[in-house]
Amino acid sequence: MKKAIILLSGGLDSSTTLYYAKNKGYDCHALIFDYGQRHKREISSAVVQAKRLKVPYEIIKIKLPWKGSSLLDKKAKVPTNRKMKGIPSTYVPARNTIFLSFALSYAEAIGARVIFIGANAIDFSGYPDCRPKFYEAFQKVIKEGTKAQKIKVLTPLIDLSKAEIIKLAIKLKVPLDLTWSCYMGGKKPCGICDSCKLREKGFAGLSSFEP
Amino acid sequence: MKKAIILLSGGLDSSTTLYYAKNKGYDCHALIFDYGQRHKREISSAVVQAKRLKVPYEIIKIKLPWKGSSLLDKKAKVPTNRKMKGIPSTYVPARNTIFLSFALSYAEAIGARVIFIGANAIDFSGYPDCRPKFYEAFQKVIKEGTKAQKIKVLTPLIDLSKAEIIKLAIKLKVPLDLTWSCYMGGKKPCGICDSCKLREKGFAGLSSFEP
Repeated sequence: MKKAIILLSGGLDSSTTLYYAKNKGYDCHALIFDYGQRHKREISSAVVQAKRLKVPYEIIKIKLPWKGSSLLDKKAKVPTNRKMKGIPSTYVPARNTIFLSFALSYAEAIGARVIFIGANAIDFSGYPDCRPKFYEAFQKVIKEGTKAQKIKVLTPLIDLSKAEIIKLAIKLKVPLDLTWSCYMGGKKPCGICDSCKLREKGFAGLSSFEP
Repeated sequence: MKKAIILLSGGLDSSTTLYYAKNKGYDCHALIFDYGQRHKREISSAVVQAKRLKVPYEIIKIKLPWKGSSLLDKKAKVPTNRKMKGIPSTYVPARNTIFLSFALSYAEAIGARVIFIGANAIDFSGYPDCRPKFYEAFQKVIKEGTKAQKIKVLTPLIDLSKAEIIKLAIKLKVPLDLTWSCYMGGKKPCGICDSCKLREKGFAGLSSFEP
């Protein structure tokens, strides 16, 4: 079985990606980040997903001494009901670059040749590090900057709408009720942050869908 | 004054880079990593360099749950007197990608538009992430994956020989006696690891040099 690293946040997209990779027959190793996110709650969702699939996981604890994002600063306001224009304040500087670099190190160390990330560039928050061009650029970094050189970053959800992701999740039997999308730090999803709104949009788009 | 992030290990190259950036008039912010290196001793050298120049610094603590390098595994043998062929066991998977990704995040968060790294591709250990092509590739990642887009990675030492780096260091008044290069975990430099050998080679190349 081919080893793969899966970046797992516990949200809808990364959980679906985990099930997708598992379904494709990969020997999955999940990588979870505790990076000071206000929605720390997502970490336990990630752990639950990994455990249900009996996938080994590692939690990387990162203490960033800087903020620069409303996701890292509990005193900052998380945007709600915003129009999808520009890069929102929830953007965390270079977050996916940091996550991928750890995944890359992990992959090299254990001999995995694939990294899965549930990035999506259709119904997304406008983050630059969720677009295909970023992953193409990172692929070059792998080629030029590692010993292994041939590790592939796969983004199976990148061109799907949120509704299509949910359809895929249902098909793969992802326990959607156990995934966590909300950016706020509360015990229940707020329903009004970007992430909740995108999730809602996805479910709304399912209306014509027959499971 | 323009802000810059300096990746500082406390070794000869990164210390020289710090003095170089300072000399160029940058408002320097040093980033030091405690990543489980067996030569943890270098961290105090880095701190000493930053303090001498009154440069603010941050230490990022990273606990990698994997090894994959003789620099991370105290039980592994560090190569000594090896011929300069191939990538040595001291290569740490994706280390400079991880370091740069944090520097990038820091730069975006505080509004720095330059990152300095003391990578060198002439008298070096054979690490792929010390070569110009890696930095060109990472530059593309910055363009495609960040909000700031225009942060430059500068590698002023990349084409210098070790002797040339030492000449530059002397010119910039880097306290060479306070830098630390040795890979081993000892209290004194071992004199036989790759890093000690390269340093020695640099000083040997100075013989014709008049300070």
